Amino acid sequence: MTLHILKVGGKVIDDLALLQPILESFLQKEGKKIIVHGGGKKASELSEKLGIAVQMVNGRRITDAASLEVATMVYAGLFNKQIVALLQSLGGNALGLSGADGNVILAHRRPVKEIDYGFVGDLDQVNAQAIHRLLNADFTPVFCAITHDGQGQLLNTNADTIASSLATAMSTLYEVKLYLCLDKNGVLSNPEDDASVIPSMNAADYERFKAEGIVYAGMLPKLDNAFDALRQGVKEVIICGPESVCYGGGTVIYQD
Amino acid sequence: MTLHILKVGGKVIDDLALLQPILESFLQKEGKKIIVHGGGKKASELSEKLGIAVQMVNGRRITDAASLEVATMVYAGLFNKQIVALLQSLGGNALGLSGADGNVILAHRRPVKEIDYGFVGDLDQVNAQAIHRLLNADFTPVFCAITHDGQGQLLNTNADTIASSLATAMSTLYEVKLYLCLDKNGVLSNPEDDASVIPSMNAADYERFKAEGIVYAGMLPKLDNAFDALRQGVKEVIICGPESVCYGGGTVIYQD
Repeated sequence: MTLHILKVGGKVIDDLALLQPILESFLQKEGKKIIVHGGGKKASELSEKLGIAVQMVNGRRITDAASLEVATMVYAGLFNKQIVALLQSLGGNALGLSGADGNVILAHRRPVKEIDYGFVGDLDQVNAQAIHRLLNADFTPVFCAITHDGQGQLLNTNADTIASSLATAMSTLYEVKLYLCLDKNGVLSNPEDDASVIPSMNAADYERFKAEGIVYAGMLPKLDNAFDALRQGVKEVIICGPESVCYGGGTVIYQD
Repeated sequence: MTLHILKVGGKVIDDLALLQPILESFLQKEGKKIIVHGGGKKASELSEKLGIAVQMVNGRRITDAASLEVATMVYAGLFNKQIVALLQSLGGNALGLSGADGNVILAHRRPVKEIDYGFVGDLDQVNAQAIHRLLNADFTPVFCAITHDGQGQLLNTNADTIASSLATAMSTLYEVKLYLCLDKNGVLSNPEDDASVIPSMNAADYERFKAEGIVYAGMLPKLDNAFDALRQGVKEVIICGPESVCYGGGTVIYQD
């Protein structure tokens, strides 16, 4: 059975009118589905309004107790429930989840070395059997980027990491396709030309594209994660944008 | 099979240290369990910090779009996930739910007559079968007071109403005991004396207590709701406080 996992983030999260056609076409896919969402700008906006300073150390954001409250409110509350209600209106039986709900994702607070990241969680375990039971009961789980440590502490976790860890963990039970929905419609061979989507890429292609400087900067960690996921059993990773989720296309990443 | 439904609200929601022993002893009960939580002061505090005016018409609070966002963030996000994470740390396999999750509670926006209450939902349907399946899968559902209309709109709904509607709907499948955890340890025969808890009350007692002025004011709608629930199949309603959930006691309301 195929399991489609869609990660959405960025501007489509801030605008339900942009998100709706994406979810609508995602629901058409044959097989089981999971959605993972990031945060959008709302959490930063809310922090600013509340006078909670965004603390950065060496370019990394720190999650103090007040920031964790904001993240929990915006990700697990506002966005998660808006997406669940939207999916329900489109006929998908969505069920919103943090890692604490049903104990589906366990994490631990990132150890303090040079930097104390605060309430940031690094993943320990995705409970694939519990998620499998929810999928079997015909729910479409919708994950926000909040996890817990099993000791009562909520933790802020990277949504991309949750998506790829879910994909890897579920690949023991399903043929998993992971869709990373970004702003552009795929990996572009020319950053100036939105139509220059590279249709597919294997590990050898990736090395060549890196050497030629065709892929660079922010796309590198995403592609590294994609190849990691493939090495760990995920069948296909698709780098796509709002339109390419809806109408096909995007860049299909495969192992070889 | 007995299903215990605990409604918590007020000051214990704002202080997890107060809530923990209540949840701990509630988890000890034999049978299935559901928790329903209200909001506490946090939503009003957050609205105030954000400069969202609390609009009252004829003594009733209006939920405009900004207030609905705050309610969704605080109830479905912060409190719901804090309670779920706390329950998980106590060994209960909690699963946080709004009415939209799994389409478990449907409501409609309250019709505008003299007053437009905004995004306030009146309940249409509790999906007892869906909740039954979650209970059978050994989850302990934790409901916040946010519902949806099935058309993508989230709605703010009274937590007491959710608790008694859940109790009524589930009583077709379970022997339901509904615990309403208030600040005092039960219905008091003397409001000045916290130890004067009336141990039990049937409909005839209630009429007599009303006539004698022993129960009055804010307790009346709660007791009316309790007797309504009993008439609709709920086995027992227990009016209790933090201590009486933990150590037994409270006022047991029964039909006759």
